[in-house]
Amino acid sequence: MSKLVRFGVSIDRDLLLKFDRLIHQQNYQNRSEAIRDLIREILIKKEWFEGKEIAGAIVLVYDHHKRELVNKLLSIQHDYGNLIVATQHIHLNHNNCLEVITVRGKPKEIEQLAFTIKSAKGVKHTQLVATTTGKEIV
Amino acid sequence: MSKLVRFGVSIDRDLLLKFDRLIHQQNYQNRSEAIRDLIREILIKKEWFEGKEIAGAIVLVYDHHKRELVNKLLSIQHDYGNLIVATQHIHLNHNNCLEVITVRGKPKEIEQLAFTIKSAKGVKHTQLVATTTGKEIV
Amino acid sequence: MSKLVRFGVSIDRDLLLKFDRLIHQQNYQNRSEAIRDLIREILIKKEWFEGKEIAGAIVLVYDHHKRELVNKLLSIQHDYGNLIVATQHIHLNHNNCLEVITVRGKPKEIEQLAFTIKSAKGVKHTQLVATTTGKEIV
Amino acid sequence: MSKLVRFGVSIDRDLLLKFDRLIHQQNYQNRSEAIRDLIREILIKKEWFEGKEIAGAIVLVYDHHKRELVNKLLSIQHDYGNLIVATQHIHLNHNNCLEVITVRGKPKEIEQLAFTIKSAKGVKHTQLVATTTGKEIV
Repeated sequence: MSKLVRFGVSIDRDLLLKFDRLIHQQNYQNRSEAIRDLIREILIKKEWFEGKEIAGAIVLVYDHHKRELVNKLLSIQHDYGNLIVATQHIHLNHNNCLEVITVRGKPKEIEQLAFTIKSAKGVKHTQLVATTTGKEIV
Repeated sequence: MSKLVRFGVSIDRDLLLKFDRLIHQQNYQNRSEAIRDLIREILIKKEWFEGKEIAGAIVLVYDHHKRELVNKLLSIQHDYGNLIVATQHIHLNHNNCLEVITVRGKPKEIEQLAFTIKSAKGVKHTQLVATTTGKEIV
Repeated sequence: MSKLVRFGVSIDRDLLLKFDRLIHQQNYQNRSEAIRDLIREILIKKEWFEGKEIAGAIVLVYDHHKRELVNKLLSIQHDYGNLIVATQHIHLNHNNCLEVITVRGKPKEIEQLAFTIKSAKGVKHTQLVATTTGKEIV
Repeated sequence: MSKLVRFGVSIDRDLLLKFDRLIHQQNYQNRSEAIRDLIREILIKKEWFEGKEIAGAIVLVYDHHKRELVNKLLSIQHDYGNLIVATQHIHLNHNNCLEVITVRGKPKEIEQLAFTIKSAKGVKHTQLVATTTGKEIV
């Protein structure tokens, strides 16, 4: 198990004042949590660039009336089955579905899956968001 | 119902060649689909900036051992119940959970929800991905 | 004149270790400077979103052989003369010039100038980079 | 010399209408130029990821009263002299300078230079913007 330590930051008073105002607007309870979030963010970006195993989500919106699209999306997901953890499906409105595919694996493979989905006809928008498996980020 | 039309693009041959190579790598079947995706992307960005109703997902990773965190996250989600469509939960490993909260509403309100989640102690990473409800994007 | 103050951050030891390793790679001399940079970055983003006066640079690459382009770019720059501080011009190679236009003003107006340049025929790439006038960021 | 060719895009009429409205706001004269810009943008991003020689600019704001900073920045620039093409300096206000360093070289080396500048004490904000040398982008 890990241990809490403490370090000091010297900073211009005016800059700190502005920071306090901003994190208050963002609902932070204290500076430490806000600083830890800033630190975790740059470390998580690094995990992606270093090709470490990451977790993430592919968010897509598509028109389920497009012929064959639903089958195609299923078949793609089976081809990349080793990367996919689970899928959540929302009916946005008469024509449109939003699907969130939770993934985990190497950044390059996940990117390839996202491109394959994005290029399918009838898929209107695809986005890939990368986060951490949390293993190395406390 | 909407109608297909056709328009012509004049372009340098070398530029087109490079484009063809890139979209082939990305699994596009033809140029039209790749061009439509580029067009949809800038239109969807615009929906966000104009404050139109959007759909999206908030992706967070947290340590479920942190005291009170699970209750706090539930309570936040109930406070913003009008924005939340559904939640998907994944057990990443012994300590870490990944949660995807599908949302829909005004960009500012969704952003506020994302900040509130992000600032909770024990939440390691929070990302907001914005997409379209598809209503105005064919 | 402003005054230095000091505050403490409590953090998991492993997380701090990773942070130290990263900022060492990025040549930081100490944690305080790295933390201050993270803080300044989010405050500067906020200046842009709040529509405050910002400074910035528009970076473009164009083919100076395109008929009339050089005159058009000059004429655009005169139309937006109140935003433009100075321009630097580089000969990249036989066909291509890189120009950096330093600007200062309201975000919306600077964006409009960037779009006007971007849409000119012969301009291959245009990017707008927003920074601060430094007045409110110590 | 290169040659113009023409290709057709089939698209939903409503989507095209929205696109036309957007590019009109952005001052484009015609669709071809807007489409070419979208295509060039993704190709230029690719140059960066593939590690090709790129051109770019590092934009920094600093307080020239900080002891030793001006000398340090000069010395850094000499260390990376092979990457730097030219520098433009603007006096923003009593305390602050904006400097634009035009660079050209491999993405990794340029990134290292940007980090070294960013980590210097007294530099308030540093941004790196990557563009193309235009050699392979018509």
